[in-house]
Amino acid sequence: MNQEIERKFLLKALPPHFEQMTGVPMQQGYLAIEPGGNQVRLRKMGEAAFLTVKRGEGLVRAEHEIELSASQFAALWPLTDGRRLSKQRYQTPYAGRIIEIDVYGGSNHGLVVAEVEFDGEEAAHAFVPPDWFAADVSDRPEYSNRNLARE
Amino acid sequence: MNQEIERKFLLKALPPHFEQMTGVPMQQGYLAIEPGGNQVRLRKMGEAAFLTVKRGEGLVRAEHEIELSASQFAALWPLTDGRRLSKQRYQTPYAGRIIEIDVYGGSNHGLVVAEVEFDGEEAAHAFVPPDWFAADVSDRPEYSNRNLARE
Repeated sequence: MNQEIERKFLLKALPPHFEQMTGVPMQQGYLAIEPGGNQVRLRKMGEAAFLTVKRGEGLVRAEHEIELSASQFAALWPLTDGRRLSKQRYQTPYAGRIIEIDVYGGSNHGLVVAEVEFDGEEAAHAFVPPDWFAADVSDRPEYSNRNLARE
Repeated sequence: MNQEIERKFLLKALPPHFEQMTGVPMQQGYLAIEPGGNQVRLRKMGEAAFLTVKRGEGLVRAEHEIELSASQFAALWPLTDGRRLSKQRYQTPYAGRIIEIDVYGGSNHGLVVAEVEFDGEEAAHAFVPPDWFAADVSDRPEYSNRNLARE
Protein backbone atom coordinates (compact mmCIF):
# COMPACT_ATOMS: atom_id res chain seq x y z
CA MET A 1 0.00 0.00 0.00
CA ASN A 2 1.28 3.44 -0.88
CA GLN A 3 0.85 6.64 1.00
CA GLU A 4 -0.35 9.63 -0.91
CA ILE A 5 0.59 13.05 0.50
CA GLU A 6 -0.95 15.73 -1.60
CA ARG A 7 -1.99 19.39 -1.41
CA LYS A 8 -4.72 20.88 -3.55
CA PHE A 9 -5.16 24.53 -4.51
CA LEU A 10 -7.52 26.76 -6.40
CA LEU A 11 -5.88 29.04 -8.96
CA LYS A 12 -5.71 32.80 -9.44
CA ALA A 13 -4.77 32.23 -13.06
CA LEU A 14 -3.65 29.48 -15.38
CA PRO A 15 0.12 29.01 -15.35
CA PRO A 16 2.42 30.70 -17.86
CA HIS A 17 2.48 28.93 -21.23
CA PHE A 18 -0.66 26.95 -20.37
CA GLU A 19 -1.88 27.25 -23.97
CA GLN A 20 1.20 25.28 -25.09
CA MET A 21 0.53 22.35 -22.74
CA THR A 22 -1.20 19.19 -23.86
CA GLY A 23 -3.76 17.71 -21.51
CA VAL A 24 -4.81 14.11 -21.04
CA PRO A 25 -8.55 13.43 -20.91
CA MET A 26 -9.56 11.69 -17.72
CA GLN A 27 -12.84 10.09 -16.75
CA GLN A 28 -13.40 8.75 -13.29
CA GLY A 29 -16.28 7.19 -11.45
CA TYR A 30 -16.81 5.66 -8.03
CA LEU A 31 -17.87 2.05 -7.39
CA ALA A 32 -18.20 2.69 -3.68
CA ILE A 33 -17.59 5.49 -1.20
CA GLU A 34 -17.63 4.59 2.49
CA PRO A 35 -18.14 7.55 4.82
CA GLY A 36 -14.77 7.88 6.59
CA GLY A 37 -13.58 4.62 5.03
CA ASN A 38 -12.50 3.27 1.67
CA GLN A 39 -13.22 4.64 -1.77
CA VAL A 40 -13.08 2.41 -4.82
CA ARG A 41 -12.54 4.42 -7.98
CA LEU A 42 -12.33 3.60 -11.68
CA ARG A 43 -10.29 5.90 -13.88
CA LYS A 44 -9.61 6.07 -17.58
CA MET A 45 -6.63 8.25 -18.47
CA GLY A 46 -6.15 8.42 -22.21
CA GLU A 47 -6.33 4.74 -23.17
CA ALA A 48 -5.16 3.34 -19.82
CA ALA A 49 -7.64 2.15 -17.18
CA PHE A 50 -7.16 1.79 -13.44
CA LEU A 51 -8.95 0.69 -10.29
CA THR A 52 -7.82 2.57 -7.20
CA VAL A 53 -8.67 2.05 -3.54
CA LYS A 54 -8.09 5.04 -1.28
CA ARG A 55 -8.43 5.20 2.48
CA GLY A 56 -8.67 8.31 4.63
CA GLU A 57 -9.18 11.96 3.87
CA GLY A 58 -7.16 15.18 3.81
CA LEU A 59 -3.43 15.58 3.36
CA VAL A 60 -2.16 12.02 3.98
CA ARG A 61 -4.01 9.06 2.48
CA ALA A 62 -3.37 5.39 1.81
CA GLU A 63 -3.78 4.40 -1.79
CA HIS A 64 -3.43 1.32 -3.94
CA GLU A 65 -3.93 1.11 -7.66
CA ILE A 66 -4.05 -1.66 -10.24
CA GLU A 67 -4.18 -1.32 -14.00
CA LEU A 68 -7.27 -2.83 -15.63
CA SER A 69 -7.70 -4.25 -19.10
CA ALA A 70 -10.15 -2.43 -21.39
CA SER A 71 -12.70 -5.23 -20.95
CA GLN A 72 -12.39 -5.27 -17.15
CA PHE A 73 -12.95 -1.51 -17.15
CA ALA A 74 -15.92 -1.77 -19.52
CA ALA A 75 -17.59 -4.39 -17.32
CA LEU A 76 -17.38 -2.28 -14.15
CA TRP A 77 -17.90 1.25 -15.51
CA PRO A 78 -21.74 1.05 -15.71
CA LEU A 79 -21.80 0.62 -11.93
CA THR A 80 -20.37 4.12 -11.45
CA ASP A 81 -23.44 5.74 -13.04
CA GLY A 82 -24.37 8.92 -11.16
CA ARG A 83 -20.92 9.16 -9.54
CA ARG A 84 -18.70 10.23 -12.41
CA LEU A 85 -16.67 13.26 -13.42
CA SER A 86 -14.49 14.24 -16.33
CA LYS A 87 -11.48 16.48 -16.47
CA GLN A 88 -8.46 17.30 -18.57
CA ARG A 89 -5.13 16.89 -16.78
CA TYR A 90 -2.08 19.01 -17.52
CA GLN A 91 1.34 18.70 -15.91
CA THR A 92 3.97 21.37 -15.45
CA PRO A 93 7.31 21.30 -13.59
CA TYR A 94 7.81 23.72 -10.72
CA ALA A 95 10.65 23.95 -8.21
CA GLY A 96 11.70 20.33 -8.71
CA ARG A 97 8.13 19.03 -8.47
CA ILE A 98 5.31 18.31 -10.88
CA ILE A 99 2.18 20.41 -10.59
CA GLU A 100 -0.92 18.69 -11.93
CA ILE A 101 -3.64 21.02 -13.19
CA ASP A 102 -7.13 19.54 -13.48
CA VAL A 103 -9.58 21.40 -15.69
CA TYR A 104 -13.01 19.94 -14.93
CA GLY A 105 -15.73 19.39 -17.50
CA GLY A 106 -19.44 18.60 -17.51
CA SER A 107 -21.31 19.64 -14.37
CA ASN A 108 -18.06 21.00 -12.87
CA HIS A 109 -17.26 23.16 -15.90
CA GLY A 110 -15.29 26.24 -14.81
CA LEU A 111 -13.52 24.53 -11.89
CA VAL A 112 -9.74 24.33 -12.14
CA VAL A 113 -7.53 22.97 -9.34
CA ALA A 114 -3.84 22.21 -8.99
CA GLU A 115 -2.42 19.29 -7.05
CA VAL A 116 1.12 18.73 -5.83
CA GLU A 117 2.36 15.43 -4.43
CA PHE A 118 5.03 15.14 -1.74
CA ASP A 119 7.33 12.49 -0.26
CA GLY A 120 6.55 13.47 3.32
CA GLU A 121 4.41 15.73 5.46
CA GLU A 122 7.30 18.06 6.19
CA ALA A 123 7.87 18.73 2.50
CA ALA A 124 4.13 19.23 2.05
CA HIS A 125 3.98 21.89 4.75
CA ALA A 126 7.19 23.57 3.53
CA PHE A 127 5.94 23.95 -0.03
CA VAL A 128 5.88 27.55 -1.27
CA PRO A 129 3.23 27.82 -3.99
CA PRO A 130 3.81 29.77 -7.20
CA ASP A 131 2.11 33.16 -7.44
CA TRP A 132 -0.63 31.84 -9.75
CA PHE A 133 -1.95 29.56 -6.93
CA ALA A 134 -4.85 30.76 -4.77
CA ALA A 135 -6.49 29.12 -1.70
CA ASP A 136 -5.28 25.78 -0.31
CA VAL A 137 -8.36 23.51 -0.41
CA SER A 138 -6.66 20.25 0.64
CA ASP A 139 -9.03 19.87 3.60
CA ARG A 140 -12.21 21.13 1.95
CA PRO A 141 -14.45 18.18 1.15
CA GLU A 142 -16.44 20.15 -1.46
CA TYR A 143 -13.34 19.99 -3.67
CA SER A 144 -12.75 16.27 -3.21
CA ASN A 145 -13.24 14.31 -6.40
CA ARG A 146 -15.72 11.99 -4.74
CA ASN A 147 -17.93 15.01 -3.96
CA LEU A 148 -17.49 16.44 -7.44
CA ALA A 149 -18.54 13.13 -9.04
CA ARG A 150 -22.22 13.68 -9.71
CA GLU A 151 -22.78 12.63 -13.34
CA MET B 1 -25.18 -5.92 -15.15
CA ASN B 2 -26.63 -9.19 -13.96
CA GLN B 3 -29.41 -9.74 -11.54
CA GLU B 4 -28.86 -12.21 -8.76
CA ILE B 5 -31.97 -13.83 -7.27
CA GLU B 6 -30.96 -16.08 -4.44
CA ARG B 7 -32.40 -17.69 -1.31
CA LYS B 8 -30.29 -18.67 1.67
CA PHE B 9 -31.10 -21.31 4.28
CA LEU B 10 -29.68 -22.75 7.46
CA LEU B 11 -29.49 -26.55 7.53
CA LYS B 12 -30.96 -29.25 9.78
CA ALA B 13 -28.32 -31.62 8.56
CA LEU B 14 -25.71 -31.94 5.87
CA PRO B 15 -27.11 -33.42 2.65
CA PRO B 16 -26.97 -37.16 1.86
CA HIS B 17 -23.54 -38.24 0.58
CA PHE B 18 -21.95 -35.00 1.78
CA GLU B 19 -18.77 -36.88 2.76
CA GLN B 20 -18.29 -37.85 -0.91
CA MET B 21 -18.45 -34.24 -2.15
CA THR B 22 -15.34 -32.21 -2.89
CA GLY B 23 -15.36 -28.61 -1.74
CA VAL B 24 -13.55 -25.63 -3.20
CA PRO B 25 -11.74 -23.36 -0.74
CA MET B 26 -12.94 -19.79 -0.94
CA GLN B 27 -11.54 -16.65 0.62
CA GLN B 28 -13.33 -13.38 0.33
CA GLY B 29 -12.80 -9.90 1.61
CA TYR B 30 -14.47 -6.54 1.18
CA LEU B 31 -12.80 -3.43 -0.26
CA ALA B 32 -15.84 -1.30 0.52
CA ILE B 33 -19.33 -1.73 1.94
CA GLU B 34 -21.74 1.17 1.52
CA PRO B 35 -24.74 1.08 3.86
CA GLY B 36 -27.67 0.42 1.53
CA GLY B 37 -25.43 0.86 -1.50
CA ASN B 38 -22.67 -0.96 -3.31
CA GLN B 39 -20.36 -3.65 -2.00
CA VAL B 40 -16.99 -4.27 -3.64
CA ARG B 41 -15.73 -7.77 -2.90
CA LEU B 42 -12.58 -9.71 -3.71
CA ARG B 43 -12.84 -13.49 -3.90
CA LYS B 44 -10.34 -16.26 -4.45
CA MET B 45 -11.96 -19.55 -5.40
CA GLY B 46 -9.38 -22.26 -5.82
CA GLU B 47 -6.79 -20.53 -8.02
CA ALA B 48 -9.21 -18.12 -9.71
CA ALA B 49 -9.64 -14.54 -8.45
CA PHE B 50 -12.55 -12.17 -8.92
CA LEU B 51 -13.70 -8.65 -8.12
CA THR B 52 -17.46 -8.37 -7.68
CA VAL B 53 -19.67 -5.34 -7.23
CA LYS B 54 -23.10 -6.00 -5.70
CA ARG B 55 -25.91 -3.55 -5.22
CA GLY B 56 -28.96 -3.92 -2.99
CA GLU B 57 -29.90 -6.40 -0.30
CA GLY B 58 -32.22 -9.37 0.20
CA LEU B 59 -33.67 -11.66 -2.45
CA VAL B 60 -32.99 -9.69 -5.66
CA ARG B 61 -29.64 -7.98 -6.18
CA ALA B 62 -27.65 -6.46 -9.02
CA GLU B 63 -24.23 -7.97 -9.45
CA HIS B 64 -21.26 -7.62 -11.75
CA GLU B 65 -18.07 -9.62 -11.63
CA ILE B 66 -14.71 -9.49 -13.40
CA GLU B 67 -11.91 -12.03 -13.21
CA LEU B 68 -8.63 -10.68 -11.84
CA SER B 69 -5.09 -11.82 -12.53
CA ALA B 70 -3.15 -13.22 -9.57
CA SER B 71 -1.08 -10.03 -9.36
CA GLN B 72 -4.12 -7.73 -9.49
CA PHE B 73 -5.68 -9.76 -6.67
CA ALA B 74 -2.46 -9.71 -4.62
CA ALA B 75 -2.23 -5.92 -4.92
CA LEU B 76 -5.75 -5.30 -3.62
CA TRP B 77 -6.15 -8.09 -1.03
CA PRO B 78 -4.26 -6.27 1.80
CA LEU B 79 -6.95 -3.57 1.70
CA THR B 80 -9.60 -6.09 2.85
CA ASP B 81 -7.84 -6.64 6.17
CA GLY B 82 -10.40 -6.94 8.98
CA ARG B 83 -13.23 -7.70 6.53
CA ARG B 84 -12.46 -11.22 5.38
CA LEU B 85 -13.98 -14.66 5.70
CA SER B 86 -13.14 -18.14 4.53
CA LYS B 87 -15.39 -21.03 3.63
CA GLN B 88 -15.44 -24.28 1.74
CA ARG B 89 -18.04 -24.44 -1.02
CA TYR B 90 -19.77 -27.67 -2.07
CA GLN B 91 -22.32 -28.08 -4.85
CA THR B 92 -25.05 -30.64 -5.17
CA PRO B 93 -27.87 -30.98 -7.73
CA TYR B 94 -31.44 -30.87 -6.46
CA ALA B 95 -34.70 -30.74 -8.43
CA GLY B 96 -33.05 -29.36 -11.55
CA ARG B 97 -31.10 -26.74 -9.60
CA ILE B 98 -27.68 -26.48 -7.97
CA ILE B 99 -27.58 -26.12 -4.22
CA GLU B 100 -24.41 -24.45 -2.96
CA ILE B 101 -23.38 -25.39 0.56
CA ASP B 102 -20.98 -23.04 2.32
CA VAL B 103 -19.11 -24.43 5.32
CA TYR B 104 -17.56 -21.44 7.05
CA GLY B 105 -14.15 -21.45 8.73
CA GLY B 106 -12.20 -19.22 11.08
CA SER B 107 -14.31 -16.98 13.29
CA ASN B 108 -17.49 -18.39 11.71
CA HIS B 109 -16.52 -22.02 12.36
CA GLY B 110 -19.67 -24.11 12.82
CA LEU B 111 -21.84 -22.06 10.47
CA VAL B 112 -23.17 -23.89 7.42
CA VAL B 113 -25.61 -22.32 4.95
CA ALA B 114 -27.11 -23.37 1.64
CA GLU B 115 -27.83 -21.02 -1.25
CA VAL B 116 -30.00 -21.57 -4.28
CA GLU B 117 -30.06 -19.26 -7.29
CA PHE B 118 -33.13 -18.62 -9.45
CA ASP B 119 -33.99 -17.15 -12.85
CA GLY B 120 -36.89 -15.12 -11.49
CA GLU B 121 -38.69 -14.12 -8.33
CA GLU B 122 -41.60 -16.44 -9.06
CA ALA B 123 -39.32 -19.47 -9.20
CA ALA B 124 -37.61 -18.31 -6.01
CA HIS B 125 -40.88 -18.14 -4.11
CA ALA B 126 -42.12 -21.45 -5.56
CA PHE B 127 -39.01 -23.35 -4.49
CA VAL B 128 -39.72 -26.31 -2.21
CA PRO B 129 -36.63 -26.95 -0.09
CA PRO B 130 -35.32 -30.46 0.58
CA ASP B 131 -36.02 -31.88 4.04
CA TRP B 132 -32.45 -31.23 5.23
CA PHE B 133 -32.98 -27.44 4.91
CA ALA B 134 -33.98 -25.43 8.00
CA ALA B 135 -34.89 -21.72 8.32
CA ASP B 136 -34.88 -19.35 5.32
CA VAL B 137 -32.42 -16.59 6.26
CA SER B 138 -32.41 -14.72 2.91
CA ASP B 139 -33.50 -11.49 4.60
CA ARG B 140 -31.48 -11.81 7.80
CA PRO B 141 -28.50 -9.45 7.63
CA GLU B 142 -26.58 -11.37 10.32
CA TYR B 143 -26.12 -14.16 7.76
CA SER B 144 -24.95 -11.88 4.96
CA ASN B 145 -21.36 -12.47 3.98
CA ARG B 146 -20.49 -8.83 4.47
CA ASN B 147 -21.57 -9.12 8.12
CA LEU B 148 -19.75 -12.43 8.57
CA ALA B 149 -16.52 -10.92 7.20
CA ARG B 150 -14.67 -9.94 10.38
CA GLU B 151 -11.16 -11.33 10.01
